[in-house]
Amino acid sequence: MRYDSAKLLLVVDLIATFVFGLEGALAAVESDLDLFGVLVLAFATALAGGLFRDLLIGAIPPASIRDWRYPTVAFLGGAVVCLWHTTVSHVPQEFIVVLDAAGLSLFAVAGATKALHYKIHPFLAVLMGGITGVGGGTVRDILLARVPTVLRSDIYAVAALAGAAITVAGLRANLPPTLTAILGSVSCFVLRVVAVSRHWNLPRVAHP
Amino acid sequence: MRYDSAKLLLVVDLIATFVFGLEGALAAVESDLDLFGVLVLAFATALAGGLFRDLLIGAIPPASIRDWRYPTVAFLGGAVVCLWHTTVSHVPQEFIVVLDAAGLSLFAVAGATKALHYKIHPFLAVLMGGITGVGGGTVRDILLARVPTVLRSDIYAVAALAGAAITVAGLRANLPPTLTAILGSVSCFVLRVVAVSRHWNLPRVAHP
Amino acid sequence: MRYDSAKLLLVVDLIATFVFGLEGALAAVESDLDLFGVLVLAFATALAGGLFRDLLIGAIPPASIRDWRYPTVAFLGGAVVCLWHTTVSHVPQEFIVVLDAAGLSLFAVAGATKALHYKIHPFLAVLMGGITGVGGGTVRDILLARVPTVLRSDIYAVAALAGAAITVAGLRANLPPTLTAILGSVSCFVLRVVAVSRHWNLPRVAHP
Repeated sequence: MRYDSAKLLLVVDLIATFVFGLEGALAAVESDLDLFGVLVLAFATALAGGLFRDLLIGAIPPASIRDWRYPTVAFLGGAVVCLWHTTVSHVPQEFIVVLDAAGLSLFAVAGATKALHYKIHPFLAVLMGGITGVGGGTVRDILLARVPTVLRSDIYAVAALAGAAITVAGLRANLPPTLTAILGSVSCFVLRVVAVSRHWNLPRVAHP
Repeated sequence: MRYDSAKLLLVVDLIATFVFGLEGALAAVESDLDLFGVLVLAFATALAGGLFRDLLIGAIPPASIRDWRYPTVAFLGGAVVCLWHTTVSHVPQEFIVVLDAAGLSLFAVAGATKALHYKIHPFLAVLMGGITGVGGGTVRDILLARVPTVLRSDIYAVAALAGAAITVAGLRANLPPTLTAILGSVSCFVLRVVAVSRHWNLPRVAHP
Repeated sequence: MRYDSAKLLLVVDLIATFVFGLEGALAAVESDLDLFGVLVLAFATALAGGLFRDLLIGAIPPASIRDWRYPTVAFLGGAVVCLWHTTVSHVPQEFIVVLDAAGLSLFAVAGATKALHYKIHPFLAVLMGGITGVGGGTVRDILLARVPTVLRSDIYAVAALAGAAITVAGLRANLPPTLTAILGSVSCFVLRVVAVSRHWNLPRVAHP
């Protein structure tokens, strides 16, 4: 990985971390957690996906433990919610969906790219991209003692997996890394936003 | 480990992975998850026990991330449920119990054996066999936001621990690996099936 | 780390492990788990914090898997509850709070110290101390399918983080390790006990 693309990956990762930290903190406030709970949910929602991916691919200690900027940015997202909660909670839902879709896209692409760098099989690198994208929200829901929404509703993980798959395919076909990252994240983003606006859902398996 | 016993361990592991993937997917359909949720529960139920064991004993990346056959077989179990759910849900409960007991036995024996190969203390290798056996079901229940059934009911983990203990004892006593694996898994299997058919339960600690 | 301070750290860690194992087992009995569930909750409550810290800082296999004394002591805590539950449940609540505060202090200090030894950034070493202290209780609550109490109530994690921060500051300032450990753990212990007796709580973020 050249220096520039490493730097790009970091910046992109930190932006997504901030967005997810913000969302985790909002969910914590809605569930009536205290100040510490808000910061924990910011941390977990922002970093659990990447943490879990890093443990699984053998990047230990994980980036978010090795580099103080990750937890700092996640806590910053939490702090913004604590300080300006009324303002943040008046942000239109549509804007949150778009921000979240952007975070999801960046995480999915970054996760798949990192897994390939660690010589993980392409099929599993796609899964690692998906885990990076949805892992944080899953841990957030487990901490709030509810079934992870990602298991139940609409096109969320599928968008992450699609973005990760395009990234892996592009990198394996030796497309330029930056172009590949753009292709992967734009696909994920568009699929997610369109799915929400059209109320697309995954089918369920009928049971008696 | 000779080539043959390594190959045997892999085949045995993959069969158990398929069975647990099937069961995880069935639980997901019953809980009204969508198609993605069904596949996630197949994956988690089949692989979380081994994943967790591998992280703990230092086999990183875990086998199920290093080897694409594990997730493929787990998803296959999920796909079977998605495609033929009506058929699968009409399979008699007794048959599911027997299949599950077989999967549990294979996982417990494989988990304990792998832990010993990684120079883990025999006492902890037994625990690792137990975690391999019950870890998947535990994560499945956490994802469904319910208290893991393994903590509450009948002789399940105890059977896994018994099978793992016999395996560890046999290997430490230099019995032939294949004989040891058979002894361990048959003990676990028989104990589990008899316990279900006789409605054996572990005692509870009385509290006011 | 000199031999003596390593030995001190081990003894201190084992005492905290026993206390947390006891508390996990008590929670399991109250939630009507069976004998196996009681032992699992003893194990998880006592060891999950340290396990998670060790995975994150790259101390793999974690101390509690490498050293049979950790799980043994945790199970001992569980066994005491199983054998003498009536007696243990009549221990005054105040005494349990004090014991728990002691365990928390020891874990927070030991966790932060170990993270520094593994060259983790001081800011993250403080977080690792916090995770060591509250991780076990969090996993206990997840297994009981409830929102972790640490996210919701009073000064618990904050005390752990304060103790860890003082420990990290002391070690970085080259204070003698034993003095630093005493300063860190006494601060955590006093803050926790005073907070409980005065009913201090963290503020919540108001939401409509």
